[in-house]
Amino acid sequence: MPSKIEAFQQERERLNDIVMKYAGTGIKRFYNLDWQVYREGALPVKTKELLGLVASLVLRCDDCIFFHLARCKEEGVTDVELEETLNIGLIVGGSITIPHMRRALAAWDEMKGDVARQKEPGDG
Amino acid sequence: MPSKIEAFQQERERLNDIVMKYAGTGIKRFYNLDWQVYREGALPVKTKELLGLVASLVLRCDDCIFFHLARCKEEGVTDVELEETLNIGLIVGGSITIPHMRRALAAWDEMKGDVARQKEPGDG
Amino acid sequence: MPSKIEAFQQERERLNDIVMKYAGTGIKRFYNLDWQVYREGALPVKTKELLGLVASLVLRCDDCIFFHLARCKEEGVTDVELEETLNIGLIVGGSITIPHMRRALAAWDEMKGDVARQKEPGDG
Amino acid sequence: MPSKIEAFQQERERLNDIVMKYAGTGIKRFYNLDWQVYREGALPVKTKELLGLVASLVLRCDDCIFFHLARCKEEGVTDVELEETLNIGLIVGGSITIPHMRRALAAWDEMKGDVARQKEPGDG
Amino acid sequence: MPSKIEAFQQERERLNDIVMKYAGTGIKRFYNLDWQVYREGALPVKTKELLGLVASLVLRCDDCIFFHLARCKEEGVTDVELEETLNIGLIVGGSITIPHMRRALAAWDEMKGDVARQKEPGDG
Amino acid sequence: MPSKIEAFQQERERLNDIVMKYAGTGIKRFYNLDWQVYREGALPVKTKELLGLVASLVLRCDDCIFFHLARCKEEGVTDVELEETLNIGLIVGGSITIPHMRRALAAWDEMKGDVARQKEPGDG
Repeated sequence: MPSKIEAFQQERERLNDIVMKYAGTGIKRFYNLDWQVYREGALPVKTKELLGLVASLVLRCDDCIFFHLARCKEEGVTDVELEETLNIGLIVGGSITIPHMRRALAAWDEMKGDVARQKEPGDG
Repeated sequence: MPSKIEAFQQERERLNDIVMKYAGTGIKRFYNLDWQVYREGALPVKTKELLGLVASLVLRCDDCIFFHLARCKEEGVTDVELEETLNIGLIVGGSITIPHMRRALAAWDEMKGDVARQKEPGDG
Repeated sequence: MPSKIEAFQQERERLNDIVMKYAGTGIKRFYNLDWQVYREGALPVKTKELLGLVASLVLRCDDCIFFHLARCKEEGVTDVELEETLNIGLIVGGSITIPHMRRALAAWDEMKGDVARQKEPGDG
Repeated sequence: MPSKIEAFQQERERLNDIVMKYAGTGIKRFYNLDWQVYREGALPVKTKELLGLVASLVLRCDDCIFFHLARCKEEGVTDVELEETLNIGLIVGGSITIPHMRRALAAWDEMKGDVARQKEPGDG
Repeated sequence: MPSKIEAFQQERERLNDIVMKYAGTGIKRFYNLDWQVYREGALPVKTKELLGLVASLVLRCDDCIFFHLARCKEEGVTDVELEETLNIGLIVGGSITIPHMRRALAAWDEMKGDVARQKEPGDG
Repeated sequence: MPSKIEAFQQERERLNDIVMKYAGTGIKRFYNLDWQVYREGALPVKTKELLGLVASLVLRCDDCIFFHLARCKEEGVTDVELEETLNIGLIVGGSITIPHMRRALAAWDEMKGDVARQKEPGDG
C-alpha cells in the first residue's frame, strides 16, 4: 500500500499530465522556470528547498509543502533543520499555519518510517 | 454515479440550505449581490465568469473555482480561453496556484467527458 | 460513531502529539502563547473566541474555524451571535469566505444536534 | 493642523466621493451592507468593531485598521481591550502583522493625544 | 508636472532598471512570461487586462492595479466595464479591497482628466 | 541625511517604543520568540535570514523585507544569493510580488552604496 506521500505524488503526476494536455507555451515555460529555480546555484539545493518550504508554509499550501518536504528528505535535511525552518514559518505566518505544520510533520514522520520500512527487508 | 463536479454541487446546495437556516438579512443580501454581479451588463456573462474564475484561482479557493468552471462550461468557454485565463492567474499568483490549476483542469476534463457521456445515449 | 467535529478533534490531538515530538523551545512557547491569548482578561473569553473565529474565517482556515467554533459552543455563544460574527467575516473577506462559512454552519448545526443527542438518553 | 487620523479620514471621504461617482447599484448596496454589519445586534457595537479590527489586522489593511480604530475610540474601547484584541491578531497572523500593529498603536496613541488636546482649550 | 500615474510609471521604470541590474536568467524569463501572458490570443487584450486587474484587486496590490488600469485605458475600457470588473473584485474579495478600489477609481478619474488635458492644447 | 533604510529603521524603533508602552506579557513574549527564531542553530544565521526574507516577500510585507534585507547585508549575503532567494519568492508568489522585489533590490542597491559611503571617509 502506498504511503500518503506516495499517493500524493502519484495523484500529482496524474493531474500534471492533464495540465500538460491543455497547457500552451506560457504554462509550459512557467513549469520549466519552477523546476529550474530550485537547482544548485550560489545557494545549495538544500537551502533552496528550505526556502521553497517556508514560502509554502506561510502561504499555507499543503500540496506545495508535501512536495518540498519530499525534496528536503532527498537532500538530507535533518529533523532539527526542518524544525527550525517550520518555526520561522510559524513565527512569520502565525497560528494560522499550525494545521499545515501539523500535517507537514505527520508526513515527515511517515516518510521517515517509510525509509526505515524500505530498509527493513533486512539487507544489512 | 454523480461526477465529482455534480457531487460538489449537490453538497454545495445542501450546505447553502444550512446557511439559509441561520442567515439574517445581511448574509441573505450578500448572497443576492453575489448572484447579481455575474449577470449580463456592459461586459458579457462569459467575461464575468472568467473574471470570477481568475479571482478564485489567485485567492486559491477550490470550491469557488469549481463553481465558476461549471458556469464557464455553460457559457461556452473554449479550452483555449480557459487556458489563457488560468495562465494569467498562474503568472499573477505564482506556483502556489498550481495545485488549484491542476484540480481545475482535471475537473474541466471530467466535465467535458460528462457532456460527452450525457450525449452518448445516442439520441442523434 | 464520532461526529465530524469529534473526529476532527481526535485527529488534531494525534497530530499535535507528532508536532511535540519534533518541537523545540520556540514552537512549544508559541503553542503556549496561542493558548494564553484566549484566556479571560479585560475582554471576556467569549469575545476572544469570537475574535479568533472571525480572524480564522477571513484567513480561510477550516481547522482553525472548527477549533474556535467548538470553543464558542462551550462558551455559550448563541446562534445569532455566531451569525453576526460570520456576517462580519463575510463582508470583510468577501464571497471567497463563503465555502468556509458553509462548512462552519454545517459543523455548528451538527454540534447542536450532538448536544441534543447527548441529552436525549433521557436522564432528566 | 489635522492629525494623521483626521487627514486619513478626510482623504477617505474624498475618495469615497469618487467611488460614488462611478458606483452602480451593486457597489452602492455593498457599501450599505458594510455599514449595517457593524450596527447593534445580539452583539454590542463595541464587540463588532473589535471583530472588524482583528479581521483588518490579520488581513493587513492599514486603512481598514485606522477606520475601526477610530470607531473603537468612539465606542469607549480601553487600552487593555485594544491590546488584547491586537494580541489575538498577532498570534493568529504572525510577525507579518507587526508593522500594522505598530502603526495601529501609534495612531491610537495619537488619537488619545488628540482627545486630550481637544479638551485642553480649558472649557471646564 | 507629471500626474500620479505618470509619476508611478516613471518610478516603476527606474526600479525595473535596478531589478535588471541584478536579475539572472530566471527573473528575466519570468518578466518575459509576464509580458506575453497579456498578449492577444483566443481572448482579446482588453479582456486579459480586465483579468489582470481583477486578480490585482483581490490580491490587493496597488502597483499592479495602477499598471493594469493604465493598460485598460489604452485598450478603450469604458467606465461601466471598469465598474463591473471592480464590483466583481469587491464581491469576491470583500470590504478589505475597498481602499484599493478607492485608489483605483481616483487614479482612473485622474487619467481621464489627463487625456482631456492632453487634448486641450486645442489641436482640433 | 539618513538613507531610506536608516530612516526606516529609526521609524521602526520609534514605533516599537509605542508598542512596548501598550504591550502586555503576550505581545512581549511574541517579540522575544520573533527575535530568537533567527538565532544560530542547526541552520546558520544567514540561511535563517534568507528564510525570513523569502517568507516576507511571498507575504508581501515591505517593512519585513527591509528588516531582513538589512540583516542579510550584515550576514554577508552576496548579490547572487539574494537574487536566487528573490527568484524563488517570485516563482512561488507570482508577479504580485514584483513591486516588492523592485523595492527590495532598490533598497539593497542603496545599502551597498551606503557601505561604500561609510568607508569613503578614507580611513585606510
